[in-house]
Amino acid sequence: MKARCMDQCIPTRLIFGCGSVENLATMKLPGKKALLVISGGTSMSRFGYLDKVIAALKANNAEVIIYDKVQANPTRKNVMEAAALCRKEKCDYIVALGGGSTIDSSKATAIMARNEGDYWDYIVSGTGKKKPMTEIPLPLIAIPTTGGTGSEMDQRIVITNEDTHEKIGFGNIHTFPAYAIVDPELMLSVPPVFTAFQGMDAFFHAAEGYIANVATPLSELYSLESIRLLSTNLHKAVVDGNDLETRTKVAWASTLSGMVIATSSCISQHSLEHAMSAYYPALPHAAGLIALSLAYFSHFVYDVPERYIKMAEVMTGKKVTDPNEFIHALAAMLTRCRVDSIKLSDYGIKSSDLPHFVTNATETMGKLFEYDPQKLTNEEKLDIYSKSYR
Amino acid sequence: MKARCMDQCIPTRLIFGCGSVENLATMKLPGKKALLVISGGTSMSRFGYLDKVIAALKANNAEVIIYDKVQANPTRKNVMEAAALCRKEKCDYIVALGGGSTIDSSKATAIMARNEGDYWDYIVSGTGKKKPMTEIPLPLIAIPTTGGTGSEMDQRIVITNEDTHEKIGFGNIHTFPAYAIVDPELMLSVPPVFTAFQGMDAFFHAAEGYIANVATPLSELYSLESIRLLSTNLHKAVVDGNDLETRTKVAWASTLSGMVIATSSCISQHSLEHAMSAYYPALPHAAGLIALSLAYFSHFVYDVPERYIKMAEVMTGKKVTDPNEFIHALAAMLTRCRVDSIKLSDYGIKSSDLPHFVTNATETMGKLFEYDPQKLTNEEKLDIYSKSYR
Repeated sequence: MKARCMDQCIPTRLIFGCGSVENLATMKLPGKKALLVISGGTSMSRFGYLDKVIAALKANNAEVIIYDKVQANPTRKNVMEAAALCRKEKCDYIVALGGGSTIDSSKATAIMARNEGDYWDYIVSGTGKKKPMTEIPLPLIAIPTTGGTGSEMDQRIVITNEDTHEKIGFGNIHTFPAYAIVDPELMLSVPPVFTAFQGMDAFFHAAEGYIANVATPLSELYSLESIRLLSTNLHKAVVDGNDLETRTKVAWASTLSGMVIATSSCISQHSLEHAMSAYYPALPHAAGLIALSLAYFSHFVYDVPERYIKMAEVMTGKKVTDPNEFIHALAAMLTRCRVDSIKLSDYGIKSSDLPHFVTNATETMGKLFEYDPQKLTNEEKLDIYSKSYR
Repeated sequence: MKARCMDQCIPTRLIFGCGSVENLATMKLPGKKALLVISGGTSMSRFGYLDKVIAALKANNAEVIIYDKVQANPTRKNVMEAAALCRKEKCDYIVALGGGSTIDSSKATAIMARNEGDYWDYIVSGTGKKKPMTEIPLPLIAIPTTGGTGSEMDQRIVITNEDTHEKIGFGNIHTFPAYAIVDPELMLSVPPVFTAFQGMDAFFHAAEGYIANVATPLSELYSLESIRLLSTNLHKAVVDGNDLETRTKVAWASTLSGMVIATSSCISQHSLEHAMSAYYPALPHAAGLIALSLAYFSHFVYDVPERYIKMAEVMTGKKVTDPNEFIHALAAMLTRCRVDSIKLSDYGIKSSDLPHFVTNATETMGKLFEYDPQKLTNEEKLDIYSKSYR
């Protein structure tokens, strides 16, 4: 136990369980008129989730306005457009239905529906103008449809500025959702490859947060349980997406990973990845992390060996003495989840891009490097990129 | 994992660590004028904690009014008196410095400083009048000086109505402290027997919450970590109260136990005990629980055997197959902590009182019996009391 103070709060009310989305029909809503935010894709309506949420809200006498243009790596433009609609329609609160992109977009929209100017005015790194928020954001009900980012239970917001090629995280105590409604039944339709991507994203949140030098006794509990659940269940959800019990375990692990972010932090694997998907928006965030992961985690094995041993123990259920066992367990997990062959070149990334990524990662998401178990030099960052490039 | 929905929120901001009380000097306080609530005893001033807190608040430009009459089993009269002082002095917030009694009293005072009538008007069981609160309570900063109740991180309030001999729990989402500042350095002065009492109280919160039929995947994480930490550390804190690292582990376990209460619930062991200390206010709450515990927990061994096995495993660090191992581990822990010889007769309780306790426990705290792993009959309640009576 560290002597350093832990200072944490997750004010979000969590409603978790199969069928929990029905709570929308009976709970006290945070206002009369909702801006319902979904992605630009078709899955929310195709699988009936959109109708389900609208029906529940209307049964609760809510008025509903829809914004349906969020992109996979959500942009500043998405945010400003949704916020303008929210102001025009005088919505009282926001409902986010979708994956991490939709939830993050909605958190940013909740800020800009109440605060003046441009979203980038408030960003505190990169080219952000570091203006303090003057108004508390609108209340947000976050309903994840992926066992993925855990964004429903944290304050973090990742938005891409398409003009400056910056993908930057932001957030504070006011940007937690008011409610997280996590219903594993809304995750049954996720196809195998995205199930693996989203679950691995959650896994990396838990593992990065566990080796972060800002981990706390509380975040450690969340991390190890998430790592254990994902290591033993994610591949089952990849193989059989209709297994509701497994989906529930993966959903719970993902929510726990959000709680890791809220009580510890991601570290520089996320900075290194964001630089890639800021330039190559077609690269899914999790695919980038997966491609980096073995080289990245191998780098810190001997900096925090007892942490690697603990992670390996919960992954394997066995007593472990060699910290490299975590790397082996991670490699085996990627194979079990059928994502061990992901290559950066699949997404058009060129080896000549790698030095630019080093610069971008350091400039736009430099803060996360401070939470690493050991400070990375630029040569080491390039080395991780190079080892990941196939 | 259960299909039933989990619905939880701990909005309290937790600041934990050695020296964390110094945060009072720099944090944004929730108003200008504080009502500082302490017990009627002398320990807060004798050990310098009172001066420390006042100095930190004043360094932060706070005005401080003191209420120093909270009793060990806090009463309705304490609450109404402190609330009257709070109104007269127009305090903006409350700072509770002390054990569970002081924190619970302060939570109730925070309600009555804003709401009209009598505290018992708002109580929802026993002779309580079940009136809804019309006003949000004053913000509360809870600073525990015992590794005990965990009340700093939960919404529960236990107050005794001295006129009706009722000791009843109450609480809702608005009765969580705004801040919990947990500084193990403020616990160094607790004498051995109270260290054992308070730590065992925390242990029972964790263990009851773990076998409760309303336990959640989240409360289970908190429970098992608290049980593990207390089982392996509490006796060390009893033997050497100056060991700050051990005090820190016990403090953290106690805070986790509060989080168990917030996300699961105590069960009927607490109802059975409250009936005793409502009639015998000199009986410390934890002593009552300790006296009941072996008979109480023995009762449910075969109702939730896998839960007993899991608790025994984290207590012993070994693979366990027999659920009775938990009872043996608990008995060994009571012996290690030097509280295995507590007798109800030590506190003047007579065997003829036991049937009255059954009635009182059922009438005033009947709700908790609904959370037991198996419904207890009145005969079984009396049997538990009888087995505990020596």
